[in-house]
Amino acid sequence: MEDTVALSLDEVRALAHRVLAQLGLSERQIGPVAETIVAGERDECGAHGIYRLLSCAHTIKAGKVVLDAEAVVHDMAPALVRVDGGGGYAQLAFDLGRPILAEKARNCGIAALGLNNCVHFAALWPEVEALAEEGFVALAFTPSHAWVAPAGGTRPLFGTNPIAFAWPRPNTSPFVFDFATSAVARGEIELHRRADKPIPLGWGLDPEGNPTTDAAAALAGSMLTFGGHKGSALSAMVELIAGPLIGDMTSVESIAADEGANASPLGGELIIAIDPKSFLGAAAAEHLTRAEQIFEGITGQGARLPSLRRYEARARSLANGVRVSKKLYDDIRAYLD
Amino acid sequence: MEDTVALSLDEVRALAHRVLAQLGLSERQIGPVAETIVAGERDECGAHGIYRLLSCAHTIKAGKVVLDAEAVVHDMAPALVRVDGGGGYAQLAFDLGRPILAEKARNCGIAALGLNNCVHFAALWPEVEALAEEGFVALAFTPSHAWVAPAGGTRPLFGTNPIAFAWPRPNTSPFVFDFATSAVARGEIELHRRADKPIPLGWGLDPEGNPTTDAAAALAGSMLTFGGHKGSALSAMVELIAGPLIGDMTSVESIAADEGANASPLGGELIIAIDPKSFLGAAAAEHLTRAEQIFEGITGQGARLPSLRRYEARARSLANGVRVSKKLYDDIRAYLD
Repeated sequence: MEDTVALSLDEVRALAHRVLAQLGLSERQIGPVAETIVAGERDECGAHGIYRLLSCAHTIKAGKVVLDAEAVVHDMAPALVRVDGGGGYAQLAFDLGRPILAEKARNCGIAALGLNNCVHFAALWPEVEALAEEGFVALAFTPSHAWVAPAGGTRPLFGTNPIAFAWPRPNTSPFVFDFATSAVARGEIELHRRADKPIPLGWGLDPEGNPTTDAAAALAGSMLTFGGHKGSALSAMVELIAGPLIGDMTSVESIAADEGANASPLGGELIIAIDPKSFLGAAAAEHLTRAEQIFEGITGQGARLPSLRRYEARARSLANGVRVSKKLYDDIRAYLD
Repeated sequence: MEDTVALSLDEVRALAHRVLAQLGLSERQIGPVAETIVAGERDECGAHGIYRLLSCAHTIKAGKVVLDAEAVVHDMAPALVRVDGGGGYAQLAFDLGRPILAEKARNCGIAALGLNNCVHFAALWPEVEALAEEGFVALAFTPSHAWVAPAGGTRPLFGTNPIAFAWPRPNTSPFVFDFATSAVARGEIELHRRADKPIPLGWGLDPEGNPTTDAAAALAGSMLTFGGHKGSALSAMVELIAGPLIGDMTSVESIAADEGANASPLGGELIIAIDPKSFLGAAAAEHLTRAEQIFEGITGQGARLPSLRRYEARARSLANGVRVSKKLYDDIRAYLD
């Protein structure tokens, strides 16, 4: 069994703060970036916990993050706000925009927040879950780097283009999902390459555009979307609404700006919040309770809610802290020397 | 080759008007319902053209449409409007709500229209395409009847729960997609049953919840979602945001209200419109032009845009009219005797 190190969540937080400070990130960015990393480790989302400090380090050392970025709010319309992240991490821009989005959604019933010019290293569920905890139905979208071919195509065009959704539940954690519109995460194909294992057909195409089971060929060629032409259509939608609609880059433009640095994607994110109380008035509580029948309909036949695994992990971590790989821990601590 | 009848689009329209009037539908509903049927026939969406007059007849004769329904507007918030369709067809409610949604989206930047208590027989692309023709980015969602099992489940819970999206393009028809979150349309499985052909694995489960290639068993059991757990998550989202969020029925409740009549689903629909001009101000035209690179990136590698087939059919039909099956034409005309 792999050697592990036991850490409290406060120790995870302190480690993240120290590493990010050592890398030169400004104090105002460190707070929200560290909280996202703590949340990922707490929920046992391996790739989105302290492991992400390595990609932060890589991206920062490549010069692809504005270390002292200041986020600037642009109030566009009664139900629209944009926050320019100034080339820093998206977490700072979201923290600034979130209360404005919430206020607009409460006032107008629905509102949208566009984050611009941000570096993205994290999952989207922290954003939508936070909004659902405030009582909103929330959606989030972001392009990434052009790695994924459209259905029927042969070359990279789309990013892994995730879609996240959250729904507030009375007396329990929100219903949340967050998935890439690619067939699998890029990291999954990288793990297969490292292990020298074939990938299933349907994950990728080789550089000539032929279906491949060779992980290295798929990484050099194209990934594929989930769900054939339907997943491909959704991926195109994410490109459009979290790219040009908010005046930001497509995944093709983001990977061009990367200039081969293999840094985290730069660009936009679109977040939509809807206030059930505005739609339903006094009947909101009744209809939110009625929605529980859908969740009971899922779990009552032995199927799982998409957020359940994370919430179970969270309960464990809040009670007992986390265990992280000794090798990963040592690799991260090396940045402190 | 099957016998066909050549009809101009005006003749299709006149036929739809006469049949719907004969069925007792009120004048104010006939107009918008007939236009949707003409649009389906024009775009060669076989199942959504005049063929749908048969399902209108079935649903009306089953007593599941309020023939003289009046739609009533409820202005909920600066960016939210609901229209109660009064148990009539969704087209009437949409026609009433559409200009209000457009005005709210222009004023607020983003707005949502909830249609309540409506009978749904059509695709969603007519709604989102109409909004994109006015310059909006549009999304639409509706539950249906509980026919589809959640991923990992064994019993029907979700409807076929379509998602539609439209994006305005300068100087050409909007980018539009509209697909069921089920693996295939229910009608596709019915066609296999009639032809006594097996269905591929992945389309459905038998009544005991086992994967099946028997079309009749899948129709008696459950359909499956597209894209595994991701499609299932999206289907749950559609249930929630076009059901309880707008105070309307889930697919389980809709099929219960059907009482075995096999009529069209009754319930809600959620439509969201976003105004790119509000997000982008004077830069809107520049970014909409930049978005064209995404479409060029798709078509430039030999892949197809999801709406292309319909637009090609539309051009043919507008020039030459349509040809419909003689048998279908006769079956429809029988309602006029």
